[in-house]
Amino acid sequence: MIGPGKVTLLEHIRDTGSISAAGRAMAMSYKRAWMLVEEMNAAFADPVVESVRGGAKGGGAQLTATGITVITQYRAAETATAQATAPHIAALQALLRDIPDGK
Amino acid sequence: MIGPGKVTLLEHIRDTGSISAAGRAMAMSYKRAWMLVEEMNAAFADPVVESVRGGAKGGGAQLTATGITVITQYRAAETATAQATAPHIAALQALLRDIPDGK
Repeated sequence: MIGPGKVTLLEHIRDTGSISAAGRAMAMSYKRAWMLVEEMNAAFADPVVESVRGGAKGGGAQLTATGITVITQYRAAETATAQATAPHIAALQALLRDIPDGK
Repeated sequence: MIGPGKVTLLEHIRDTGSISAAGRAMAMSYKRAWMLVEEMNAAFADPVVESVRGGAKGGGAQLTATGITVITQYRAAETATAQATAPHIAALQALLRDIPDGK
């Protein structure tokens, strides 16, 4: 439903106001970026991205409130995971063999 | 270095006292089970599995203190991740479209 690629795409759409510019920022074709947005729009009860018509830039795309929440919750889950696992990862790393320099 | 397959293998070795029995429990060849144990023994400063000679069962394998700690810390990290992400996953799931029955 959602993963790091889709969330990063949403962040680029938020920052660029454009699905094509967001795709370019990820070296992704417009077709693929559009398909991923459509998948998300179909998966969520409300769309995550909506088109914006007119204006100085001649239209584009912007996130909906749902799209913003998706980013926020996904990144919060990542941060919470990193914090929660840190002591356990440190404990495991402390048990690893020292790697010699240059290897 | 460590992942779900290796940790599950360690748990089976702990429970069966045998690398081959642990491999069988995971539908894994003895060769592959042995290779994974060797990888872990090489990665950690102390071995995670040691051989046991003699006894009623004619020898086998058992976890070292390091092996037990690896299981404990790995599973603790999993539990901590599930707990830390639960509210964010719930928030995302609440935004999903309802899936009709039978689909």
